[in-house]
Parts: sequence; structure tokens; C-alpha cells
Amino acid sequence: MNKSTIQLILEAIEKGEMRAGDALIKLKDLPFTDIGHTKIDNHRSLRSGHPEVIYGEHKTARQVVDIFQAMLTKQSNILVTRVSEQLAVMITEICPSVIHNPIAHTLFYEHDRLPETTSSIVIVTAGTADLPVAEEARVTARALGNKVTLIADVGVAGIHRLFACLDVIRDARVVIVIAGMEGALASVIAGLVEIPVIAVPTSVGYGASFGGLSALLAMLTSCANGVTVVNIDNGFGAAFAASQINHLELEKKS
Amino acid sequence: MNKSTIQLILEAIEKGEMRAGDALIKLKDLPFTDIGHTKIDNHRSLRSGHPEVIYGEHKTARQVVDIFQAMLTKQSNILVTRVSEQLAVMITEICPSVIHNPIAHTLFYEHDRLPETTSSIVIVTAGTADLPVAEEARVTARALGNKVTLIADVGVAGIHRLFACLDVIRDARVVIVIAGMEGALASVIAGLVEIPVIAVPTSVGYGASFGGLSALLAMLTSCANGVTVVNIDNGFGAAFAASQINHLELEKKS
Amino acid sequence: MNKSTIQLILEAIEKGEMRAGDALIKLKDLPFTDIGHTKIDNHRSLRSGHPEVIYGEHKTARQVVDIFQAMLTKQSNILVTRVSEQLAVMITEICPSVIHNPIAHTLFYEHDRLPETTSSIVIVTAGTADLPVAEEARVTARALGNKVTLIADVGVAGIHRLFACLDVIRDARVVIVIAGMEGALASVIAGLVEIPVIAVPTSVGYGASFGGLSALLAMLTSCANGVTVVNIDNGFGAAFAASQINHLELEKKS
Amino acid sequence: MNKSTIQLILEAIEKGEMRAGDALIKLKDLPFTDIGHTKIDNHRSLRSGHPEVIYGEHKTARQVVDIFQAMLTKQSNILVTRVSEQLAVMITEICPSVIHNPIAHTLFYEHDRLPETTSSIVIVTAGTADLPVAEEARVTARALGNKVTLIADVGVAGIHRLFACLDVIRDARVVIVIAGMEGALASVIAGLVEIPVIAVPTSVGYGASFGGLSALLAMLTSCANGVTVVNIDNGFGAAFAASQINHLELEKKS
Amino acid sequence: MNKSTIQLILEAIEKGEMRAGDALIKLKDLPFTDIGHTKIDNHRSLRSGHPEVIYGEHKTARQVVDIFQAMLTKQSNILVTRVSEQLAVMITEICPSVIHNPIAHTLFYEHDRLPETTSSIVIVTAGTADLPVAEEARVTARALGNKVTLIADVGVAGIHRLFACLDVIRDARVVIVIAGMEGALASVIAGLVEIPVIAVPTSVGYGASFGGLSALLAMLTSCANGVTVVNIDNGFGAAFAASQINHLELEKKS
Amino acid sequence: MNKSTIQLILEAIEKGEMRAGDALIKLKDLPFTDIGHTKIDNHRSLRSGHPEVIYGEHKTARQVVDIFQAMLTKQSNILVTRVSEQLAVMITEICPSVIHNPIAHTLFYEHDRLPETTSSIVIVTAGTADLPVAEEARVTARALGNKVTLIADVGVAGIHRLFACLDVIRDARVVIVIAGMEGALASVIAGLVEIPVIAVPTSVGYGASFGGLSALLAMLTSCANGVTVVNIDNGFGAAFAASQINHLELEKKS
Amino acid sequence: MNKSTIQLILEAIEKGEMRAGDALIKLKDLPFTDIGHTKIDNHRSLRSGHPEVIYGEHKTARQVVDIFQAMLTKQSNILVTRVSEQLAVMITEICPSVIHNPIAHTLFYEHDRLPETTSSIVIVTAGTADLPVAEEARVTARALGNKVTLIADVGVAGIHRLFACLDVIRDARVVIVIAGMEGALASVIAGLVEIPVIAVPTSVGYGASFGGLSALLAMLTSCANGVTVVNIDNGFGAAFAASQINHLELEKKS
Amino acid sequence: MNKSTIQLILEAIEKGEMRAGDALIKLKDLPFTDIGHTKIDNHRSLRSGHPEVIYGEHKTARQVVDIFQAMLTKQSNILVTRVSEQLAVMITEICPSVIHNPIAHTLFYEHDRLPETTSSIVIVTAGTADLPVAEEARVTARALGNKVTLIADVGVAGIHRLFACLDVIRDARVVIVIAGMEGALASVIAGLVEIPVIAVPTSVGYGASFGGLSALLAMLTSCANGVTVVNIDNGFGAAFAASQINHLELEKKS
Repeated sequence: MNKSTIQLILEAIEKGEMRAGDALIKLKDLPFTDIGHTKIDNHRSLRSGHPEVIYGEHKTARQVVDIFQAMLTKQSNILVTRVSEQLAVMITEICPSVIHNPIAHTLFYEHDRLPETTSSIVIVTAGTADLPVAEEARVTARALGNKVTLIADVGVAGIHRLFACLDVIRDARVVIVIAGMEGALASVIAGLVEIPVIAVPTSVGYGASFGGLSALLAMLTSCANGVTVVNIDNGFGAAFAASQINHLELEKKS
Repeated sequence: MNKSTIQLILEAIEKGEMRAGDALIKLKDLPFTDIGHTKIDNHRSLRSGHPEVIYGEHKTARQVVDIFQAMLTKQSNILVTRVSEQLAVMITEICPSVIHNPIAHTLFYEHDRLPETTSSIVIVTAGTADLPVAEEARVTARALGNKVTLIADVGVAGIHRLFACLDVIRDARVVIVIAGMEGALASVIAGLVEIPVIAVPTSVGYGASFGGLSALLAMLTSCANGVTVVNIDNGFGAAFAASQINHLELEKKS
Repeated sequence: MNKSTIQLILEAIEKGEMRAGDALIKLKDLPFTDIGHTKIDNHRSLRSGHPEVIYGEHKTARQVVDIFQAMLTKQSNILVTRVSEQLAVMITEICPSVIHNPIAHTLFYEHDRLPETTSSIVIVTAGTADLPVAEEARVTARALGNKVTLIADVGVAGIHRLFACLDVIRDARVVIVIAGMEGALASVIAGLVEIPVIAVPTSVGYGASFGGLSALLAMLTSCANGVTVVNIDNGFGAAFAASQINHLELEKKS
Repeated sequence: MNKSTIQLILEAIEKGEMRAGDALIKLKDLPFTDIGHTKIDNHRSLRSGHPEVIYGEHKTARQVVDIFQAMLTKQSNILVTRVSEQLAVMITEICPSVIHNPIAHTLFYEHDRLPETTSSIVIVTAGTADLPVAEEARVTARALGNKVTLIADVGVAGIHRLFACLDVIRDARVVIVIAGMEGALASVIAGLVEIPVIAVPTSVGYGASFGGLSALLAMLTSCANGVTVVNIDNGFGAAFAASQINHLELEKKS
Repeated sequence: MNKSTIQLILEAIEKGEMRAGDALIKLKDLPFTDIGHTKIDNHRSLRSGHPEVIYGEHKTARQVVDIFQAMLTKQSNILVTRVSEQLAVMITEICPSVIHNPIAHTLFYEHDRLPETTSSIVIVTAGTADLPVAEEARVTARALGNKVTLIADVGVAGIHRLFACLDVIRDARVVIVIAGMEGALASVIAGLVEIPVIAVPTSVGYGASFGGLSALLAMLTSCANGVTVVNIDNGFGAAFAASQINHLELEKKS
Repeated sequence: MNKSTIQLILEAIEKGEMRAGDALIKLKDLPFTDIGHTKIDNHRSLRSGHPEVIYGEHKTARQVVDIFQAMLTKQSNILVTRVSEQLAVMITEICPSVIHNPIAHTLFYEHDRLPETTSSIVIVTAGTADLPVAEEARVTARALGNKVTLIADVGVAGIHRLFACLDVIRDARVVIVIAGMEGALASVIAGLVEIPVIAVPTSVGYGASFGGLSALLAMLTSCANGVTVVNIDNGFGAAFAASQINHLELEKKS
Repeated sequence: MNKSTIQLILEAIEKGEMRAGDALIKLKDLPFTDIGHTKIDNHRSLRSGHPEVIYGEHKTARQVVDIFQAMLTKQSNILVTRVSEQLAVMITEICPSVIHNPIAHTLFYEHDRLPETTSSIVIVTAGTADLPVAEEARVTARALGNKVTLIADVGVAGIHRLFACLDVIRDARVVIVIAGMEGALASVIAGLVEIPVIAVPTSVGYGASFGGLSALLAMLTSCANGVTVVNIDNGFGAAFAASQINHLELEKKS
Repeated sequence: MNKSTIQLILEAIEKGEMRAGDALIKLKDLPFTDIGHTKIDNHRSLRSGHPEVIYGEHKTARQVVDIFQAMLTKQSNILVTRVSEQLAVMITEICPSVIHNPIAHTLFYEHDRLPETTSSIVIVTAGTADLPVAEEARVTARALGNKVTLIADVGVAGIHRLFACLDVIRDARVVIVIAGMEGALASVIAGLVEIPVIAVPTSVGYGASFGGLSALLAMLTSCANGVTVVNIDNGFGAAFAASQINHLELEKKS
């Protein structure tokens, strides 16, 4: 099965095979697994290979392990983000084939390999210090089946480094621009390309950066067209949205 | 005695048995116990079973222990919130029958069991990570004599999980909605039920959550009617207000 | 019909007369009137006398008039809040029996008189300048069928004025406390009564009031128990929540 | 000519027909028209029908008129946003065939009609008051050659209104969600669809809305995946990004 | 010598014994001891008993010790505030007669006992958790030669505790009110007394307290007259200003 | 009668002539005049000459006139602050002997002249633009019976202007320092004098002044001892607190 | 006389011709003209041609006229900034030879022409809407005797426009970069040149620009070296600092 | 070679020896070393002695070591800022001749000694606690070849300490003023000297300092002319800008 349950239901309505009201009943009956502290939402991941995702922060290690184990039984791919060292150890013990990326702070369990897109997502960072966010984005985009290229450290202070990579960027279907401090790189790239730009402000900086606020506000008020923004340090969210865009064509074709 | 001293005084005024001025004198003479660093306000807890409450944060462990011991001599129920591990150990040594809830960060000493209300408070969380706040609310509401149901992890990203619990929520007399990040769950529930909704923003989130500010502002500006809001992470306060509402009918009847 | 459609549907589920899934279909089929720029949600106001509400700000006068006229055809009571002088004139021309309260900035069209509750809501303001918000709350609470008392100008700078009104406040089922500047009145009243306190910060003040932020933060961080808070200047919202609480007993009785 | 100059140049590099360095020289020599106070960037609009865009705010009416007239000579389509009443009059005198949308505050001069996409952009608003932003988005998306549908007033306070439109939304290639106050609609829709969601916070609201800050933070911290965000009230920017996404397939096909 | 050098100089001008210009030369030549990282300003402490003050935070322990030792040679009284445990140990080794107050985080070396004022400063706290700030104020006021009374834990949630202490407060010459959270106590006391009220917001609280901001804004916007405010947690500053006021009469008499 | 009722009551307690409890009854029975929208607090102004004060902003002109007229019947002095031009005209018509200060935005009706203090308050401004706040302070201090001197435009950018006035400042009993922008003058003066400094930040400035926030924060974090702060633009409040300090000695003597 | 009084005094100290103390006396005796509401600081403008400067905002038109007239008598050049239309008319009537720049909101009276520097200041703006700030900077820099070039509308959204002007910028001694919104232009230019960059954030923008805050924070956190920042919209301040830098060499040579 | 590559290229254009377009190609071909996580920008440091700079924060120690080693092979001087103790040890092991300044948190490897300027930069701090920022500035300015003088602890609370150093300050070509808390020192110094003032706000302070925000806003809104500001605690940036100014004359002469 290559489509999500929800999509199949809605297509059934469209074709007149089902009434919209019945669809809502089905929505209510969509599978989720209640393990007490968490209600695992299964219906999105039923497509083979599409990963379940666990946001690892703000939960106890015990809770994450419970969720992970419940998911393992479904034979899905599983991506865990914002993983502490301790949690990585605990889950690796349970499931030795999980891949731990200590810079991205992710764990990835790949039960089935998802086919890779032909078009690609390019991830660009302004500095070396933005790499943890970029790695989170890269791991996520890969786990969602995208071809990904990562270009690090081409911030505007030495803009010739960006020019040297411009051909690679324009060849992508969507670009993720990751920058802290004044976040100017998003505007500069959006002025040079005509593909969608998803900007990720990072908390890299100090003083008037106010934990990423400076980059966030700068990206939101970009004078260049076509920039949309996600939360500070949200590499996962940028990759998820980029993957939706990158998959649009393929799905339409099917 | 089932009523608070202050209530009896004020009723006496109402019945013409006492002049308002005399009531104020009595207010001034209301019992409190001065233990140097703290003036314990006893008059609210004189009703059998109604707990004394100690807010455990920002005080030294020594001070909390002093207050706890002074209260023990009054044979009240005692609820301590925001309890550190160290404090939990210190008080359990003094009073082994105290119940420690490590997720809620509470201690509860139940000298007399309070009768439980027939109507209930439902506590709903958007995510697993909101559970510490929800548990603080649950323990508090129970300690104040309420029937309580806790529903975890029904945030709007998978709204069908909420629909599956809607019957339980609408059966309550008041609902506490606990959510971090964008706090949208409060608006959605308030649009679906006609009972009072007390919203608790949590500090769950990162970046533009700014320690719970995003959820707080969202809940305050809810487009749905009937939402009132308490401080970020204030599970105790939400439960206290909910308990006041849940007890209104019973007290009127007596 | 005295109950809302949604309530009847949900009760049918409870009694086993309808499946929850069918209820969701009906939710989807709930009546709303689409007039292009607005989708008027009729299902809440079908109970005789319960007013339709139009929030008058940020809409063009033309849009509000359209909505008002569409509602008039349903023979509901209609409450319009945040009404400009110009809008008041336009609607009064269409519907001369509408009542304009220029301090509350409200219009009220009362097609059927709602029965008044026996228990009351008390509205208290810290200063004279808080009266527009208090009047919005009073008009709303009255339109929702509540007995209401308004006590103005008893702020903490002259606390004896509050003591002189304490008996009236404690006799209510719920109290709305409206204050700008430092908003201390909410904490003081919540420390003296045992009924729910709904606090409304106002934008009255200057400088470090920052448009009501000082009162808002103060009310959210109140050291007194039982305080819940609504948005700055939201007299309507406070009255709506208070009315829900004030009607709880009556509905349970039925 | 159907492609932008910049695209042609870069494709030439890709094909080995031009060295990257030569491309940069050409970038430098890209056409712009210097009219003193403004350097009009022509190279993006050389494709027939693609509009020139003038941001009308913060410029004097005189400056906007100068820019408009300079663009007229190029026989491009011209879109002016954030247009005051006075400016609309001035430009209509110069160019009577310009179309003024007083709700969107836009002017549009269509020299050549751009072919419309087969896939569509859906624009959804939470309330009536969000319509000016939605209209700006609609006019922009249309001017950029997109098929557009606008659904107004389906905010979460009456969520059944949203369910009634869900089929239309899921049929689009990308959805723009426009909401003020607590901005919850973006999260709810993103939880129900699998297409990219571009969220536009609006300044609709008061008090703790802080000019759109509440909706902005809520949208940035959305618990639903796939949401990206633009500046407060930036209907233009959302439509521009949506158009880029909506055109991806078509361009790849060519 | 009982007067400061600067005062003597300025009195000389007043009496015509010195030209203002000459005073400025002397100002420039006022004694300070340069120990490299610090220029110790001696001229204020030349009066017997008036303490030198070292702000202990943000300096290295080594720097504080250097300054302390340089001051010891002048035989002044010395007050060190914001002292870490480590620093307390280091200085006690050098100067065993120093008095360490671990709640106030102060060290005091009293070379000469300052005569105590007949009129007194009263320090009042809203809660037990405000005691560290209150103790810093008490130690400072004592070190500056004032009679001081400290009343703890009389916050507005149990206002009868305040009434029981009102006589003591009104007997003082100046009152320092210390409160976190909503900081309402300052307004309530200022409404009940006619002496100057110096308000100290504390960082006690959580969530919307924003590190003391809620109390700070509340105190600045107090509706009661006669309240002035110092920085969050600035017990030292409040005591210093209170001491200036408390000494006014005595100095005029001399 | 030269003392306030509240003071007499409290002195009676002190002398053992009255029990504290009886005092509280009397507090409750303190005179206030209820004119519907306002409860005029008379007990402070019973001393001959001490003015009633009306804060004129945020009230309707009609309300202020009502309050003014009610006060006139008591033969008190009356000070109205934050007076609009329109209000000034309305009240002058009612009471032609009222004095309007259009820079201070005050009205003053002097029924009895208050005796002037021998010691003085000095008011210092950093710039010409701070004069409205300074005039409000001057008029208030005068109305409260103080000798006052006003020194304008001695900001730190030309510090020699300050030195030329230093003798006058140091001769005062208390100094009010009024400054916008960076508010540095308060720190500089507090470093040069040994009398209490009350700092008033003003909203003079633009950009990063954020309506007076820059000066407010600067004054709160002053490195000089003895500075206390009032709200932005609160000339009245500074003068009230300064007058309390300036009268301390006189009252003690009586 | 070509040097300021203060400079001559200080040089005399350096040469041993005067004691530092005497210099301070002289500082105190530096000329200023007291016209009541303002103390005009003359000593900086005694050099022929160096203008007196009046900041025109927040003062009454009457006050500005008074100051202007007092300065006219000194035969100085006079620059007035932040001039309203009404003020421009009033001063032009008094002094018809004054030059009014309605975009810069300046008035300039040039009694003596200052010699122009050989090296130049370049002023660059990101957009047309930044021109009022740029013009204020240009007029100021000219009035201070600098050669100035203004390049408008080269923001990063069309970066090839910047490259076309790069030669002019690098030829200057100092560059002022003026940008609103995300303020990225400052970082990009600082990465391309090796001269000092003074960045001026402007209030151009909306929504998350928060009145220039986004550009301000971005410029302060620039990843490019050599950027210093002035207040939002402070064209005058940037020009003043740039002029100091531009004159350094010349003065050293003399 | 004494000039940067970029400068030589641009001068070639100026002299007509190269076309601007060719310069841009060369810009693109400027040397940088790609070591995976970082693209080291070499072209600025090719001048003998000019240091490479590594910002040490937010990178892993491993990444910094990699960059350092790659730079060592170029035989440049290398300055590392924001160095942790652990990193200092790691790099010292690799390169024992590196100089570690533990107060400045810098490492400096001096391969070639840069000639020192004849004119000097003076660095002034308000307090002892500002020394880490001042030391970072001093080390940076020295590494860039400047004569530097550091004056510590002359804050405005004891302004006579400043007067005693005024001669040294005025003798410099540019002054860096470093202050936390209210940051008043920048305004006071800028009012006394006529050289450029670069102000560095520091995070020294507590409460309303908000991590340096108070000093930052104060410096940005300085009433004194000629002040420009860098980020909070950015001693490096201030020194870099100061060095640019200090070298202007020398380079012009060559």
C-alpha cells in the first residue's frame, strides 16, 4: 500500500464511493495505539517505509523507550529526534540495528528502505556551528526518502564561498537555509534562486541573538520573495515540509 | 465543622448576628502560626480533610520541613507541590505515610479522606510531555476531593484521537486543557463543549515557544468562548479553580 | 427546544440511541449560514433567547451589517461587541429596537427575554477608567441570562472601599475582577473569598503598563488561589465564562 | 521567451555552454532601471506575463507613481500591494485599465494574461476579519498565474465549518492558512492534510495578540508537521511561495 | 571626622570658603586606590564606621579577595554582597572575624560599630521565598547604622496576617516591601501607610513571572501613591536608599 | 485638623486609647463618596490644604467633571493631572479660579494655601523635551506644600552644564532626576550627591527607546547607590514620594 | 579658530601649559546660553562653520524657534533635524535663507561654508523607503563638511544591483548602510569591503519588524566583522560618527 | 605582500587594468579551504601577520582543532576567541607556543609579529566585572597590530576616577567603552571627547539588566553624538572596528 489511509478515504469521497460523513467516522476510527502516557498515531505510517517519528525532548527516557518498543511491533521505520546520550544508549541496547547520529541527536531504525526521489533537497548552513540543526534536517529528509545534499559554512561574511556552490543549489527542487545570528543568508539565497526557500533560524549566537530571535525576525521580514520560516533550530520541521514539496510531483504522477 | 471560619463569620453578618466591623476584627484575629520565616495561614484548612498546601519551590528544604512539621501538629491533610528529590527524601523520613508522586513532583499526606464529588473534572493533555503538569493538577484535584479523569496525548496534530474521547470530556463539570507549543487544543475543545475550560500553557517546546509564552498568548487570545487561563505550568492553580467550580453545586445544596 | 443541538446529539450517544460516529456526521451537518465573507454558526443559538454574538472589531461596517441582517431572519437575540459610533448608527437604522450602550460599545437586540438566574455574577473594578470593560461584561452577562451586580472603583489604594462591599461579593456565585495598572485587586479579592475569581486585565495605565501587560502578568502570577485570567480588556470573555459557571447548577438540576 | 534570464544563464553553465564565472559577470550586467530613488529590477519579469511587483507602503505616492510609469514602458504586468486610497486614485488616472481591489489594497495591471495552472492553491481564513490578508494573497496568486480558491471564516471555534470544506482543501497542491488571535487553524489543518501548509499570522486581535505576535508564535511552534510561516499579514509572501510550489511540476515538465 | 570629604568640599563652596572650580579639582584628586583591575573609591567611607561595599557577583573570587585586602588596610567596615560559598571560605580564612550570612549571601567585617538610628526601617516580605533578598536588605541597613525590623510572609493571599503587623509598619520612618510573583503587597501597604514605600520585586515565581518582570511591572504601575522601585532582587539598593531617608533628620540636626 | 483620620486612629492605638481591631472597623467606616462610577476617597484630604487628586487620563471628560464637582463641595484643594485641552476648558467654565498649566497638563484649584517646607525638592531634567514630566512633578510638589526648584536641560552630553548646577542640587533634601533616551543622568547625579535620588524615565526618544523602556531599564540597573525609580513619565508619582521624604522631618518635629 | 575650546584646553595640558585640574575648572566655565527651557551648549560650535544642532522632535515648535533664534545671534551654522511641516514654515519665516529638505525632515542654515573633505562617506540604502533616513544622514554629513555619495535601493533581494556599485563603495573612507526589514545588507557589504561599516536599522517594514527591531537585532548580531550600529532611524547619528572617522586623518595632519 | 587580494583586484579595476566583471570571477575563485564542516576563508589573511580568526563558541572542540590545524599549515597568525578551558588544553598540546589568556578566553598564535600602529586604541571599562570583555578586545586589537591601553573600573558612580584618566583617553584615535548595567559611561565619555566612541554593552548585571539588554538599549539611545554600538559582550567586534579606524590613516599613506 503506497497511500495513507486518510488519503484513500478522501479519494473515495471524491469518486463518490463514500459519503463525506462516513469519512469522518473513519477518521474517528483511525488506528492509534494507547499506551497510557501516549496515544501513538499509526495511520500516517502505514505506507511501507514512511517512518514513525518520536520527538525525544521533554519526555522521560522511559516514555520514549515505551513508545519506541510499541512502534517496533508495527515493523515501521522509526525516527527519534532530540535524543540525549543516555537515551541513545538505552534504545541501542533494545534495538542494536538503530543508527545513532550524535551531531544530529537522532536515532533511525530503518525496517524498509524507502525509494529515493530523483529530485533533491539542498541544505545550506551559514556556519559550522549550525551543523547540528542541518544534520537533523539531513537525517529527516533521508528518512523520508529524499535525495539530499548538505553544503556547510557559506555565510554572507565570505559571500564568494556561496557563489562557488550556487549551481548545486539551483539544481535542487527546494532549498533549506540554516543560519543563526543575523540570518542574512536566507535573503541572499532567495534573491538568487527561483525555487522555494525554507529558512531555519538557529540559536547560534549570543547577546542580542536572544536565543535565535534575531535570526527568526530577520528571516520573517526577508525582503526577498519566496522565503517561509520554521521554528528556531527546527531542522526536522524544515525537512518535513521540504519533503512534502519534493514529493509533490511524484505523487501527482502516480 | 464543615465550613471555613471566614464563611461562618460572613454568614453571621448576613443573618444580622454580627456587625461587619466585628467581622473584620475577627479576620484580623484569624489563626495563623508564626514560625519565624513563615506565617502559616490555618483558617482555610480547619474544615476536616481540606489540605494545607505548601509551594515547595524557592524555599530551602529546611524551611519546607519546618512548615510541614508545624502543619502535622494540626492533623490536617498536607499537599506539597514542586518537590525536589532531596526534599521528598527528607519529608518521607519524618512522615513515612506521605505519598510521593515523582512525575507530579508532589507529596501528599492524607490524615482524613475527603469525600469525593459525584461530578468530575477532566484533565486533557496535548502531549506526553505535558504529563508532569497534568499529574500536578490530578493530584491537587484529588486532594481537594474531586473525582478526576486524565486523558493524555490528544493534541490537534492527530485530532481523531480527541474525537474518540469527546464523550468523556463533555460528561465532566469542568475541563482542564494542558498544552505547550502552540496551545491550540484549548480552542478546539472549547469550540466543542459547553462546560468551562481552564487552559494551562506549559513550557514544553523550544525556540519560539519562549518557555511557554507561545502557548500562553495563544490561550489568552482564543477565538473560542469560555476559556480562562492560568500561569505557565500551573497545574495546581488550574485544579484549585476547577475544584471551586466543581464544588459550587454541592455547597449550595448544603 | 431548550438544549443545544450538539448537546442533544451527544446525549443520544450517551443513552445508546446514536453511535458516536453518527454524531460526528451530524456535527458536520450542523447548520451554518454562508454569506460569502462569513459562515454564521447557528447551532449554538437555537435555544430560545441565547444570543448570537458578533465581534464588531476588525470587520468592515458593511460586513457586520450583513451578518446582523442574516441573523435577524433567524429571530435570535443578537449581541454585537466592540461597536464603533458609525456602526451603531447604521444598525439602529435597520433595527430601531436595538439597544446601544456607548460605554460598553455594545448593541443588543433582544427578541426573546432569557430567564434570569437566581444566583448572581458580581463584577468589580479597580478604577473608574475600567468601566468600559466592566460594562461590556455586564451587558454580556445580562444577555446570557444572568443576574449581575457591578461595583466600581474599589482598587487597593483605598482598600477600605473594598471592605465595605465584601458582603455583596461573597454572596455571588462567581466574581469578575477588572483592573489595569498593577492588577493587584484580583489577588486581594481571591484571598478574601472562596468563589471562583475571573480576572480581566485592562489596558488602563501608561508607561510600564505596556498596554495592559503589567496587569496581565500580575494576574497570571497571583499568589492567591482560584484566579483564572482572560485576555486584556476582554470583558465579553470573562462574562461568558462566568455565565457558564453560573448556569452549571441550573442545568444539572434539569 | 518563457524562462527568466537568470535561469537561462544557469542552464547554460549546467550544459557546459558557459563558465560559472561568466555567469556572474552576466548577473552583474542584469538589467535594472535606475530612476534615482529606485533601481527597478527587470530581469525577473522578462518572461511574458510574469508581473513586476511594487510594495506600496513606506514609499511616497510620488515614488510609487514614478516606478509604475517606468514599468509601464516595459509592457509587463504590474502588481502594486499595500495601496492607499489616494495612491489608487493617482495610478488609475494614469492607467485607467488598472484593477483596484480595495479590500486587498492592491492594484493590478494585466498587459498579458498568464496561463493558469491546472493544480490549485486554496486559501483558508479563520475569520471574516482576516479577509484583507486573504484577498492580498488571492490577487497575488492569480497575478502569478495560479488557479485559486478562497474559503473564509472556518476558524476552530466552530470546527464543523472546516470539516464541510475539507474535501476542497485536500484537492489543492498547497494550502495557505490565514488566522489571527491564537492561530490554531494552521495546526488543525496541517494535522488533517498531507500537502504543504503555508501559515500567515494576522494582526487581527487585541490585548495579548500584541499585533499578531500570538498567532505568529503559535504557528511557528505548531505541533503539526509541514507548517511553514511567513510574516504577520504577509498575504503576498505566502502567495508567492505557494505559487513557486504550485509551478514546480509544470516547469519540470517543460 | 563625621562627614564625607565631598560634603566638606561642597560646604566650603557654600560658605564662600572655596570656589566651585577648586572643588572640581579636588573631586578629581579624591582618593582612590588603583589595584589594577579595580579602582577602589575611598572617599565615601572615610567617615568612621561607614562601610566600604563590594558587589561580589561577576567578579572572580581572586579579584574580590584583592579588593577586600586593600580595604582592610584602611580599617574601614566592609560589606560584601552576593557572596558565593567558595568566596565566603576564602575571605573567612584571611579575616576570621568577618560575619557570613548564608541566606543573605553577605559578608560583613565591622571594624567600628556605627551608632544606630532611633527611627527604624521596616522590611516586609510577601513570602518565605523572598527572605534572601530581605536578609540582604536587613544586613545592609544594619551595616549602615539603622534600626531594622523584618516581618516575613504577609502576602495578600492571607491579608489578615498583614493587618496584624500594621502597627509596627506605620511606626517606621520608611518601609521596604519585598515581593515576587504579582508584587501586589507594595500597592496594598502603600494604600495603608503614609511613609515612603520602597518596593523590591523578586525573581520568586515561575512561568509568566519571567524572572521577576511581573512583580517589577506591577510595582512600577502601582495605583497607590508614594511607591518607588529598585531592581529585581536588589535588597542592597533598597536598604541603601532607605538608609539615606532614615538618616536625613539626624544629619540635618547635626 | 492637621493630621489624617487614619493617622489619628493609629496613634490612638499606639497610646492604648483604642484597640487595633476597633481601628480596622473605623478604617472600614472611613468616609468615601460614592458617585456611581467613582468612589471618592476623602479620608486623606481632610487635613486642610492637602489636595484631592484626580488622574485625568482614561476617564471620560464627563466623569472627571463629576468627580471635580463632588470634591468642590468638600472645600479641598484639588489637583487634576493628565488633563486634555477639552477637559481644561470644561472645568475652567465650572470653576474659573482653577489654574491650568498646559505644559504639565494639570489643573490646580487651591482653596487653602498649604504652608511651604523650608527644605526643598530639586527637579532636574536631561533635556528640554522632558519638561512636561518635570512640570507635572513641579506642580504636584508645590500643591503638596514643598519648596521646589527646577533645573532644565543638563544631560550628560554636555556634563559641564550639570557641574554648574551641582551646588543647588546638593542643597536639596531630595532630588528628582527626569531623563529619557539612555537615562544616564540619574546615575551620574547619584554618584555626586548623598541625598535620595528619585529617577523618572521619560518616553522621550525613538527607536530603541521603546517608549521609555531604555531609560527605565537603565535607571533600574544604575550602578550608583540610592536611586529609586517610578513609572515612565510619572512626574506626579515622583513628586508625591519626594514630598513624603521632604515632610518626614517636619512631621517628626510636631 | 579651527579647533574646539575643549581641544585647545586639553592640548595645553598635554604640552604642560596647563594643569589637568585647571582644565576641569574651565570645562565647568565652558560657555552655554541658558534660555530657561534649554541650556544651549556653545563650546563645540565655536569652530567656524561647525553647525549647532537642534533635535526637533519632542520639543514644542515654540521651544525650537527660541533655540534657533538664540543660535542665530552666534552666527553659527545651524542644523535642525526631525522637523515638522509646521516648524519648517515657522523657521523659514524668521530666516528665509534656511534650506528645508522635506524628505530628510531637516532645516539647514549655512552661515559659513565648511571646507569639504577629500575622502568621502558613502551612504547606501536597501530600499526606496529607507530614503528619509538616508537623506537625514546625507544632509548631516554635508553640514559637517564631508564629501558624500548616496546610493539608493540596492537591497539583497537583487544583489546584482549592489555589485554594480561596489567600486564606489570601496573607494570611500567609511560607509553607512541603511536598511529596514531583515537588515541583511549591512552584513553583505561588510563582507565585501574593508572600511568601517556603520549600520542604521530603519523602521521600514511591518509585522515581525516590530518597528525596526528585526533590522536592529540583525545588524547587532552580524557575522561580518567591522559593523557598528546606531539607533533605529538614526541617520543623524550615523553621519556624525562617520564624519568623526572621515575627519581623523585631516585633523592629524594639521 | 601587504595588501589583501580583494583590495588588489579592486584597485586593478580602478586603474583600468581589469574589468569589474573579471573581478567578480576572481572573487568567486578566491581561495578557501574546504575541510568538510567548515570553509576556511583565506583571502583576508594573506597579508603577512594579519591573523586568521576562529570564533570558538558553538563549535565542538574537535571542529575548532581541525580548523586550527588547517590554518597552521598556512603559517598565518591565528586568534581563537571564546575558548573553553578544555579547548585551550587541546590546542596547547598541538601547538605549545600558543598564548592562552584565561580572562579573555582567547588563544593567540603569533607566527609573524605585526607592526604596531603609532596611534592608539583606548579601552575603558565601567567596572571590574567587565574585564573579560575588555581583555577580549585588548587581545584582539593587539593581534591586529594596534597600540592599546586598558583603563579599568572608572564607572559613573565615582566619576572623579574617570576625570583622572581623561587625558589618556583623549590622546587615542578611537575609544572602546565597555559597560554593563545601565551603560551610562558611553554617553558620559562621548560627551567629553571628540574621537569615535565604540560602545560595548556587557551582560554584567542582574534582574532588569536582562542579560545586557539594559546597557544595549541605553547605548543605542545615547544622547551624546558619535557613539556606535556592537553586540552585548562583543569585545572582539569592537576591537576589529576600532582597528579598522585606527589603521585608516596608515593605509591611506601607503
